[in-house]
Amino acid sequence: MRLQQSSSMSAQICPFAQRTEIALHEAKADFVRYEIDLQNKPEWYAPKVNPASKVPAIAYGGPEAPPDDPSPQSVKLAESLILVEFIGDLFPQASILPADPVKRAQARFFVDVVSNKLVPGYHQYLQGKSSADDLYKVVESLESLLPSEGFAVGEYSLADIAITPFLARARVALSNDLGAYPQGEGPKVLEALTNKQGKFPRFAKYFEDLLARESFKATFDEAYLTERYKARFGNLRNQQ
Amino acid sequence: MRLQQSSSMSAQICPFAQRTEIALHEAKADFVRYEIDLQNKPEWYAPKVNPASKVPAIAYGGPEAPPDDPSPQSVKLAESLILVEFIGDLFPQASILPADPVKRAQARFFVDVVSNKLVPGYHQYLQGKSSADDLYKVVESLESLLPSEGFAVGEYSLADIAITPFLARARVALSNDLGAYPQGEGPKVLEALTNKQGKFPRFAKYFEDLLARESFKATFDEAYLTERYKARFGNLRNQQ
Repeated sequence: MRLQQSSSMSAQICPFAQRTEIALHEAKADFVRYEIDLQNKPEWYAPKVNPASKVPAIAYGGPEAPPDDPSPQSVKLAESLILVEFIGDLFPQASILPADPVKRAQARFFVDVVSNKLVPGYHQYLQGKSSADDLYKVVESLESLLPSEGFAVGEYSLADIAITPFLARARVALSNDLGAYPQGEGPKVLEALTNKQGKFPRFAKYFEDLLARESFKATFDEAYLTERYKARFGNLRNQQ
Repeated sequence: MRLQQSSSMSAQICPFAQRTEIALHEAKADFVRYEIDLQNKPEWYAPKVNPASKVPAIAYGGPEAPPDDPSPQSVKLAESLILVEFIGDLFPQASILPADPVKRAQARFFVDVVSNKLVPGYHQYLQGKSSADDLYKVVESLESLLPSEGFAVGEYSLADIAITPFLARARVALSNDLGAYPQGEGPKVLEALTNKQGKFPRFAKYFEDLLARESFKATFDEAYLTERYKARFGNLRNQQ
């Protein structure tokens, strides 16, 4: 389905931006994708699209215009979770937002744990500022919310979109032992998170299901991300 | 309209809890309200309703049960903004969630600024950890989002519900000069925020409109809150 004339400003490195891309893919939305170089942002980006100068952002509606010269008449929207809900509202048949209000609230509660515990917890661990056990506590609280099978609230939803890009990046960082946590610990932590006979069997199955999703695979370039992560986090341990 | 058998756990002192109460009032929902004493929480509250032991929370559905002994079959939901959206989903005619997806996204963006800038900014100011100018910067960013008239996105919505309880409490604190900011500054800051010929004319009009809303007035006891605020913040300046 054609999304009203619109462009999505993204960056492959950014987990927040990938949320929007997964949602657009789930919705089978027709849109123009534009890669923003976060190290060298184009001058027009803050004044014409997002004053906060972050990705993701969407320019929606208005007359036809190239993504790097968006029409002042298009609506500019930002913040990944807001964009995911926006795409869910535009494309109800994609079921990004569960139809049942209770499941919708439960999906948003899962997102809240992702935003307020997993995202900061993952970054702190990566930077050597917290222990693997701290990270496991967050995983436990997420695992306790999961139903016995399926995704976060059963059917695939915004809850799953919110967490997927962070788990994908954690897998890259941990498998390559990138980060400031103790040397050699990365692969062990990844094993704990992904072994279905291990510490978190239900979470491990969920992790596997999320990364098998077509909308994830279509929006993730593991080789590119690994290279960028090596450049960014490869020397972090020695700098501490 | 009768909300499916449900109870709302609240506390008059708490701005987050008042969000839920305003939403329930806007929706004309029929429900049982239960006041939780935050200084002395009932023992059943964490295990039976909200493991995080915070208000607000809603016990929704299941068989008839008293609010202080909710049925295990009812769904327990928490987090104020999630509850406001839940009530909006249950009662679409209340228009808590704007029908237009763009306005809905803009309302959520406004909420994001309230959550990530106003709420922490207000508390820091109250505790004497930031200046009036810091607070004014937040007010400026909110003012820049307001349309020329009406509420945050035109019609009254979740955006307005999210901010109202904080402005109401700021008015009580500032008018009574309660807080750790410099003595005598409270009433001046309140004047800046509420004088329609002053520093923030559009914001001042918005402030007035919010506090004139029936759903706010019906869920706010100014005398009670003033007394509680005096007990809690009255001596803060001397303790610094």
